[in-house]
Amino acid sequence: MDEFELIKVLFKAPALDREDVVLGIGDDAACVRVPVGQDLYISTDTLVADVHFLKSWDPFDIAWKAVMVNVSDMAAMAAYPCWLSLALTLENYDEAWLQRFSQGLHTALKQFGIALIGGDTTRGPLSLSLTIHGLAPQGKAIRRKGAKPTDEIWVTGTLGAAALAVQLEQVEKAPKYANKINHKDRALLLEKLRHPQARVDFNTILQTYASAAIDISDGFSADLMHICEASGVGACLSLEAIPVHPVLMNCLKEEALTFAMQGGDDYELCFTSPARYHDDLQQVLAAAGLLCYRVGVIEALPGLRAFTAQGEFKTVTPAGYRHF
Amino acid sequence: MDEFELIKVLFKAPALDREDVVLGIGDDAACVRVPVGQDLYISTDTLVADVHFLKSWDPFDIAWKAVMVNVSDMAAMAAYPCWLSLALTLENYDEAWLQRFSQGLHTALKQFGIALIGGDTTRGPLSLSLTIHGLAPQGKAIRRKGAKPTDEIWVTGTLGAAALAVQLEQVEKAPKYANKINHKDRALLLEKLRHPQARVDFNTILQTYASAAIDISDGFSADLMHICEASGVGACLSLEAIPVHPVLMNCLKEEALTFAMQGGDDYELCFTSPARYHDDLQQVLAAAGLLCYRVGVIEALPGLRAFTAQGEFKTVTPAGYRHF
Repeated sequence: MDEFELIKVLFKAPALDREDVVLGIGDDAACVRVPVGQDLYISTDTLVADVHFLKSWDPFDIAWKAVMVNVSDMAAMAAYPCWLSLALTLENYDEAWLQRFSQGLHTALKQFGIALIGGDTTRGPLSLSLTIHGLAPQGKAIRRKGAKPTDEIWVTGTLGAAALAVQLEQVEKAPKYANKINHKDRALLLEKLRHPQARVDFNTILQTYASAAIDISDGFSADLMHICEASGVGACLSLEAIPVHPVLMNCLKEEALTFAMQGGDDYELCFTSPARYHDDLQQVLAAAGLLCYRVGVIEALPGLRAFTAQGEFKTVTPAGYRHF
Repeated sequence: MDEFELIKVLFKAPALDREDVVLGIGDDAACVRVPVGQDLYISTDTLVADVHFLKSWDPFDIAWKAVMVNVSDMAAMAAYPCWLSLALTLENYDEAWLQRFSQGLHTALKQFGIALIGGDTTRGPLSLSLTIHGLAPQGKAIRRKGAKPTDEIWVTGTLGAAALAVQLEQVEKAPKYANKINHKDRALLLEKLRHPQARVDFNTILQTYASAAIDISDGFSADLMHICEASGVGACLSLEAIPVHPVLMNCLKEEALTFAMQGGDDYELCFTSPARYHDDLQQVLAAAGLLCYRVGVIEALPGLRAFTAQGEFKTVTPAGYRHF
């Protein structure tokens, strides 16, 4: 079996049977059937070695993360991921690496019932470009645009862990934090970086209550600013309410909040919801056992600002996030 | 305007209005609407610098070729290309390069009415990964599988020009051919390599008459073998009937046929069609002004074989194609 044959076998198995896949991997194109009344959502994300992940990572984790980053884009639209295309560029042919990579890939795909429908393998510096396809009922698109003054701003989980993990993974930056964080906490942070969980579990909640949504991949403040700009509004946050990851709360002082405000690799969602839904939303969240944090309110005045825990008012400069 | 802003502007304009694009570039995902009764076709192709094209090429041509390579996969399924995602990895930020690239991109997209609906730009060695989405009436998929004994084998255009052009573009191989080919012919060959035309003009013909089809990107003999393997059949060719590009016929001797049999970058189609359609097919081709060549016949016996111009019978070893 030559290398291209093996890649085919690894990526084909285990076959996931979806009735909507008319024609899977192995022809000039895949063919799928979109149900009547559904819209198709498409998103592409490229992950480059030593930018979005480290070459030294377990290939299982590289594949897992690549899938989650793409599924997270579906979650941000409240769409259900269905079909994935994978363009993989490999430096060399390493059977053990490919075996492990395909395990991570299929494990992640299986969790969401996504079928791998095609792709391409080329030789070059390690990178992955994934295109994910998802479905949602027509007219249910949750966009970045749509937030209105008085809407509440929500975040679906704790923030900052993955961004701190990125620091810990870098030889030159790790010493600054190494002695503040014990072995167990370090493992927790790395887990958040390498095994993010895309929040499709919020899909029906977003479809029912959200006026706008985005996934937090560029950094929370930067992504909230994307919502504000697309919607022509601004936001006022309560810094006390920002859900900083507990390990950061324990180990770091003021810097913890900076990581939470600017960290991007957690792949949580930020969404806005009309204030009149507050009680219903709280009830639904409690019933579903989902943690979700109200962190501020949308205002007509553009830009970001915040009240500190001490009640001081300050301007927030949206800061982007660099992976590695 | 920073570099990411410019990339956004370049790739967005000129906006192509397709009513089926609910949400284009600029959100976490694009949203499109697939018409009732149509199936969705998806294909991904990666083009790596100095493998599929030369870094020294005009960026217009790089973009053009990348689009055509992907559109050709739609043509091979007899599907109409609609929406494209582009993942672009750039070594550095070169405004003039990007301007020219976007011109090539939009020119190619406009020819087929394709909307660019999203993508991703990352830093790294120059490569492009495109995912194309197309539509065709449900149940009309033309696959590699489906060829039956006695079916005729057709090729949609002349072969070998692009493969010879690849040789001419390589410093170490060019001298072998340089003195055999004049300036004008050389330009013709390079045009075939850099400006291929995907054969969506055969879509309705394929939907009506084809039992199987493939685009010739791996080399004609290798791609015909893909049809045979997928269909569980073999093929017998008439080497005299192989449509060798006229420049190769004039400039090279026996080697011309080798280029035509093994060359892959022409992006013509190979399809099979039941012999009973022969006359109808000929009429339709003539009426449409389309050149198409009957090169052999499908047989039950696996493998490829051929009759030479001298009436000798020989086995053909399907040979793959290397770009650069």
